[in-house]
Amino acid sequence: MPDSIQDFDAFRARMNELILGAGNLTIDRFFALDRRAYEPGALGSKTKEMLGLVSSLVLRCDDCVTYHVVRCHEEGVTREEFLEIFSVGLVVGGSIVIPHLRRAMARLEEISGVPPAPA
Amino acid sequence: MPDSIQDFDAFRARMNELILGAGNLTIDRFFALDRRAYEPGALGSKTKEMLGLVSSLVLRCDDCVTYHVVRCHEEGVTREEFLEIFSVGLVVGGSIVIPHLRRAMARLEEISGVPPAPA
Amino acid sequence: MPDSIQDFDAFRARMNELILGAGNLTIDRFFALDRRAYEPGALGSKTKEMLGLVSSLVLRCDDCVTYHVVRCHEEGVTREEFLEIFSVGLVVGGSIVIPHLRRAMARLEEISGVPPAPA
Amino acid sequence: MPDSIQDFDAFRARMNELILGAGNLTIDRFFALDRRAYEPGALGSKTKEMLGLVSSLVLRCDDCVTYHVVRCHEEGVTREEFLEIFSVGLVVGGSIVIPHLRRAMARLEEISGVPPAPA
Amino acid sequence: MPDSIQDFDAFRARMNELILGAGNLTIDRFFALDRRAYEPGALGSKTKEMLGLVSSLVLRCDDCVTYHVVRCHEEGVTREEFLEIFSVGLVVGGSIVIPHLRRAMARLEEISGVPPAPA
Amino acid sequence: MPDSIQDFDAFRARMNELILGAGNLTIDRFFALDRRAYEPGALGSKTKEMLGLVSSLVLRCDDCVTYHVVRCHEEGVTREEFLEIFSVGLVVGGSIVIPHLRRAMARLEEISGVPPAPA
Repeated sequence: MPDSIQDFDAFRARMNELILGAGNLTIDRFFALDRRAYEPGALGSKTKEMLGLVSSLVLRCDDCVTYHVVRCHEEGVTREEFLEIFSVGLVVGGSIVIPHLRRAMARLEEISGVPPAPA
Repeated sequence: MPDSIQDFDAFRARMNELILGAGNLTIDRFFALDRRAYEPGALGSKTKEMLGLVSSLVLRCDDCVTYHVVRCHEEGVTREEFLEIFSVGLVVGGSIVIPHLRRAMARLEEISGVPPAPA
Repeated sequence: MPDSIQDFDAFRARMNELILGAGNLTIDRFFALDRRAYEPGALGSKTKEMLGLVSSLVLRCDDCVTYHVVRCHEEGVTREEFLEIFSVGLVVGGSIVIPHLRRAMARLEEISGVPPAPA
Repeated sequence: MPDSIQDFDAFRARMNELILGAGNLTIDRFFALDRRAYEPGALGSKTKEMLGLVSSLVLRCDDCVTYHVVRCHEEGVTREEFLEIFSVGLVVGGSIVIPHLRRAMARLEEISGVPPAPA
Repeated sequence: MPDSIQDFDAFRARMNELILGAGNLTIDRFFALDRRAYEPGALGSKTKEMLGLVSSLVLRCDDCVTYHVVRCHEEGVTREEFLEIFSVGLVVGGSIVIPHLRRAMARLEEISGVPPAPA
Repeated sequence: MPDSIQDFDAFRARMNELILGAGNLTIDRFFALDRRAYEPGALGSKTKEMLGLVSSLVLRCDDCVTYHVVRCHEEGVTREEFLEIFSVGLVVGGSIVIPHLRRAMARLEEISGVPPAPA
């Protein structure tokens, strides 16, 4: 069972601050570009966050999944829509996605106010 | 430069026929599930095909990209929307996505009636 | 050092129940297909579980490795056979497999009744 | 459609000769270790080649798949067994494995004396 | 056997022009950042190109390998140094790197004036 | 937040001992080759460790990153050089590298005597 979203956010914020304060311009610009990629354009923010979520799932990046589950929830993605994003990621990426799907599902419970599963 | 979409389709059709005629029920069911994952539900077909395209791009699967570029085009994805899907895939997956982005762009030209770039 | 197999099983069981109770038919069918793939056919269950284990190792999926180590053990895979599966996975996947091999080895100790290594 | 197995073998043989003649001892030893991993031990050659094939499939390495399809065939793997190895690889690795499965199937036809599918 | 470096360069140049002319600012900035990452700083260009080459090799991106082999050659990387970069990539990434190593070696021959191996 | 480097080293040492004592010659030789790949030759140890670090980062292997951050530090890699290695890995591998970059940065703090970030 992963840490809580709150713990994830605290570590993420502290390390991003360290990284962006380190004075490497290429890294700074990459972080700016990473934010830019999800800004609304021809596609809205909700669609772009769903693209980010399914990409994170098939690439099996738990922290990225946590981030995009939270952002998708903020953009109004419903439980049924989350499950369909997960189903596309599962079929594309195969059974090795399942452990990440379990943790994605735990995140979904967590943001819905259901206490995360005990370890 | 890849083969034409027409050549890709012919090879794909012939091999799928061979695979599905081989009598392995697990494989047959996987192919059925792969079709099912993109059927409209809480999310429409267009959104699901965009999810399939960005997943294919970050996983660097040229044939999968070709398939979903064609399907996205059929679902009405515009040139500007294609470019935004590509931009998310590029930022998520990094510069190793670039060679696949080039071939995706060649596919986009091809379905727009522009002759593909000569090798 | 990972959680115990018992903790892994408890989280796995609880999340699978949540996922399969969520009402997404594509996901449900994928889980059924995932079980079906390891049922005996032209190849026996032992061989199929070994295929699942080496695939999990080269794809570097710790939870998948844990699951298949347990299943291989149930199918009678010996310690020497486990080591040969690991050796193929290591040569195919390279030194990035080593951290996963360490955790696979800890699982092997754990199912042999040796207490897992302290963190 | 890939090159023929004969063309693959010719390029493989010529480049291996170049690589092994280049005087880098680490590379030479890796190639020796790669052969060693498939020699019979607690597991027989047939089982080890099947492990190599499924690993190559889930890692989506067409040349590796070609090599292990040929070796599995030499070790007596039957058509039904090939299909079951493919089915495990497909479920583990997901739909992005499908293009590689198509090419693996073309190889299977090729070694069975059926002319490979035209492009 | 891959296309010649000249063919690769022509396709790359034409597609980059298309991509950069398409008007997606995120993609444009990514391409600029990709160039920036290899400019000399605390580490020189030669070292950075070697980092790009080994990354491309372990990620199994043939086009990226071609690009960085050419750039490394321009930065004065010697044949012995190339082989040591390849040896690190091979040990880190395992035997699935071998097909890409063969093509990298063919590129090395090609830039040394030796005609590439016939298919 | 990961375990401390000290905890990582203890688990690593104990499991390596178990693995190398298990009597599988292929595995033993792979471990020997893994050490050999980083010994100075045409390229010095510092350069080779930097190659190992960037490879580990783009392949998103946290334990491998920890190991090579420590080794690079021993070889005299400076903070500015670390950041440039990270920047190449980030641009090559994309935003999915970011969580691993955060943990790499935490390691860098840890070896510099700064207490690691609290979870």
